[in-house]
Amino acid sequence: MDLDAYPHPALAVDCVVFGLETDKSHETCLNVLLIERGLEPFAGAWALPGGFVHIDESLDEAARRELAEEAGLHDVFLEQLYTFGAPERDPRGRVVSVAYYALVRLSDHHVRAATDARQARWFPVSQRPDLAFDHRQIVDLAYQRLQAKVRYQPLGFELLPQKFTLSQLQRMYEHILERPLDKRNFRKKILGMDLLVALDEMQQGVAHRAARLYRFDEQRYNRLVQRGFNFEV
Amino acid sequence: MDLDAYPHPALAVDCVVFGLETDKSHETCLNVLLIERGLEPFAGAWALPGGFVHIDESLDEAARRELAEEAGLHDVFLEQLYTFGAPERDPRGRVVSVAYYALVRLSDHHVRAATDARQARWFPVSQRPDLAFDHRQIVDLAYQRLQAKVRYQPLGFELLPQKFTLSQLQRMYEHILERPLDKRNFRKKILGMDLLVALDEMQQGVAHRAARLYRFDEQRYNRLVQRGFNFEV
Repeated sequence: MDLDAYPHPALAVDCVVFGLETDKSHETCLNVLLIERGLEPFAGAWALPGGFVHIDESLDEAARRELAEEAGLHDVFLEQLYTFGAPERDPRGRVVSVAYYALVRLSDHHVRAATDARQARWFPVSQRPDLAFDHRQIVDLAYQRLQAKVRYQPLGFELLPQKFTLSQLQRMYEHILERPLDKRNFRKKILGMDLLVALDEMQQGVAHRAARLYRFDEQRYNRLVQRGFNFEV
Repeated sequence: MDLDAYPHPALAVDCVVFGLETDKSHETCLNVLLIERGLEPFAGAWALPGGFVHIDESLDEAARRELAEEAGLHDVFLEQLYTFGAPERDPRGRVVSVAYYALVRLSDHHVRAATDARQARWFPVSQRPDLAFDHRQIVDLAYQRLQAKVRYQPLGFELLPQKFTLSQLQRMYEHILERPLDKRNFRKKILGMDLLVALDEMQQGVAHRAARLYRFDEQRYNRLVQRGFNFEV
């Protein structure tokens, strides 16, 4: 069959980028990165970073290119989420969007707006503004996916600084899962998996008693997974 | 931005259809539905049922239409799997494919080949032939997804007859998960969730002592999920 025998939809990628912010008083907040659109349709509205797939790049490459162009983000955790293809989702005509979600270590990355975006800004997931297109639905699905996956895959470490305290780790899980965790059970479970390396370093700049820092041992995790190990928090 | 300012990839859907076959001696086999291609490229090779998305239909609609046209399948469990977009995956040019997986009750459905397919046939997942395009990769991912999901969602019931014995249920899980389950623990767990209705009917046409038939209570499951219940086998 001739590929051009009938009209093709336009193909885009859109990225839900999550970052975890911790303020001075240790309040934790899951943020999502939004872009103020500079062009019609929805000029001036907030939307997910994204754009059209080039004819010679893979879908993953398109998503990474858009994150770099629109927000200056490089080398982040990125995974395909779902493809949105309702016929009326874009007022310009048929646009199918392959959605991705990304996890960003806010301590490592500075976000800047570029190209056709007016500005890039982090919003708390729970206090995001109205979004262009069907982007609200995409963010909702990404958040559900994150909540479902974080318990069974060590995704959460992608959101924390490379060195973290056990309290920071617990607050991250509590915030994403939206429920409190018992401190003793949590520590027993997480330390029992033997995936954390206790560092010879303590937390800096805290008024109370400084806590030990840990890092996630990714190489060890990968070895264990090959032997059938299941991560579970 | 003008949607037609640059070339668009063609957009297709491909479906991995699983069906569970049980022979007279109670051997269970997970099958995948393949289509013998009638047209180039890969004429004569086996491939997944699928085809191009029409400009005015949603992705789900395209997948359901192709299952009806190519295999005579209607009203089956269908879920989006992943979108495959490597630039070189189709020799005709850029074709991006949104893959789905479907679960079919073989007792309810007869499969027939139609339109541009020479024939439709079930193959054991473990003994499938070489496939056209990147369809081997798509089947592998669908099987992984099924193995991962079947423990935490009552998907398995979509593969069994409406009325089944506890032995049939256990064999289905053992076959998909590729490991034996302890009969006593399995029954305790599955009956403990209180999702099965014991019927006033026994298995027919068996030489040994007939076993009781059960059905899955989907309405009850949906009510429990709303209250935070987690299915787990």
